Amino acid sequence: MALKLYGLPMSTNTTRVMICLHEKDVDFELVPVNVFAEEHKQPTFLSKNPFGLIPVLQDGDLTLFESRAITAYVAEKLKETGPDLIRQNDSKEAALVKVWTEVESHYYEAAVQPIIYEYFVAPFEGKEPDKSVIDSNVEKLHKVLDVYEGRLSSNKYLAGDFYSLADLSHVSETHYLMQTPCASMINERPHVKAWWEDISSRPAFNKVVGGMTFGQTHQE
Amino acid sequence: MALKLYGLPMSTNTTRVMICLHEKDVDFELVPVNVFAEEHKQPTFLSKNPFGLIPVLQDGDLTLFESRAITAYVAEKLKETGPDLIRQNDSKEAALVKVWTEVESHYYEAAVQPIIYEYFVAPFEGKEPDKSVIDSNVEKLHKVLDVYEGRLSSNKYLAGDFYSLADLSHVSETHYLMQTPCASMINERPHVKAWWEDISSRPAFNKVVGGMTFGQTHQE
Repeated sequence: MALKLYGLPMSTNTTRVMICLHEKDVDFELVPVNVFAEEHKQPTFLSKNPFGLIPVLQDGDLTLFESRAITAYVAEKLKETGPDLIRQNDSKEAALVKVWTEVESHYYEAAVQPIIYEYFVAPFEGKEPDKSVIDSNVEKLHKVLDVYEGRLSSNKYLAGDFYSLADLSHVSETHYLMQTPCASMINERPHVKAWWEDISSRPAFNKVVGGMTFGQTHQE
Repeated sequence: MALKLYGLPMSTNTTRVMICLHEKDVDFELVPVNVFAEEHKQPTFLSKNPFGLIPVLQDGDLTLFESRAITAYVAEKLKETGPDLIRQNDSKEAALVKVWTEVESHYYEAAVQPIIYEYFVAPFEGKEPDKSVIDSNVEKLHKVLDVYEGRLSSNKYLAGDFYSLADLSHVSETHYLMQTPCASMINERPHVKAWWEDISSRPAFNKVVGGMTFGQTHQE
C-alpha cells in the first residue's frame, strides 16, 4: 500500500517529510489539506492528528504526525534504501544525529520560524512585519549560527562527515529564510554557506522546491 | 567506564536523563554544574555543549547534550536492560513513542515550562509571577491536556499500553507543575490523573524526586 502524506508542499513541516521520502525514493500520495478553509480543524482530520496540524503520514493502519517523528520512522523503515540518514550501524553517530536534530528543533527552527512568519505570513494577512520580533530572533539565530560555523569547520555535516536527518531537517525552513534579508546570516559564514549549498543541491530537495511557493503565490 | 552526567538534580532536563538512567539501573556519576556562578557558560563546559546548557552526558569519548537525545541514546544502548522504553521490536509502537515524545517537547513542555518559570524562578529572582504569561500558557495547556485525556481514555500510556520514553519525558516538569495551582488541570481529568499517579510512582522517579528542590531551597 502506498504511503499517504496529508499536507501542503508550501509547508516547511510537510516538505521536511517529502524530502525524506524522496531521499528514500519511495512512492507516496500527497493529499492536499485546505488549511485556508480550516480543513485541518475538522473532525475527519482531527481523527488523524488531534492537534490539528499538518503533516500526517498514513502507512496502512498506522497514522503518524509530527514531522520529525515521521522522518525518523521513514528513515528507520527504509534503512536499507538510499542514504543512511540515522547511522543505524554506529551507535555514536546515531546519537549525534539525534543531538543535532534536537538542536534544529529547539534552537534553529525556534529562531527561523518567527522570522519566516513575519516576512511571509504577516504580509499575506495584510500586516506589516513586526520588526521587534525579527530583531530578537535574528539575535538568537546569530548565536546558533556561530555554533554551527564552529561545528561545520571541523565536520562536513552537523552530526559528522555524513549527511543525516539532522541536516535534512533544516532544508525546508532555510529555503524560505534565504529569500529574506537574513540570507546574509548564512552567506557571511563560509562553512555554513558551503553546508547550505551542499544540502540544498541534493536531488530530493530539487523535487519539492518548485512547490514551496508561499509568498510568491500570494504576492502575484 | 561509568557514565558522567553534568547537570543539577533540580533541573527538569537533568532529571529527565537521571530517571532514564535509573530505569535502566545503570551506574553514573552526577557532576554538579554551578549554573548560579555561570559555570555552564565557561570554556570548559562550552567544549562539551557549545550551547551552554545542562545536562551533558559523557560516555567514554562520546559527549552528548539535549536531554531527549540523551535519553534516546541510553534507551537504545541499554535496550536489553530494564523496561523497553523505545519498543525496538515493533516499528509501529516505536514510531508512536517518537510521535508522543515530540508532542511532549513541542506542546506540553512548551506550555508547562513558562508556568514553572513564573511560579518558581521569577520569585527566586525577586519578581512577581507574570499573570499574563501564566494565563496564556494555561490556555494552551488546557487544549493539550484535553487531547491527552482522550488519548489516555483508550491507551494506558501515551504511545500505547506500555510505559515508554514518551511518558518518562513528562515526569520531571509535571512534578513541579503539581506544586502550582495548575495541579488542578491534571487532577480534574481522570485519565490524565491516573496516568500521572502511575508514572510518578515508579521507583526510578522516586530516586530523583528528593533532589528536585527548586523553590523549596530558596524559599527557606
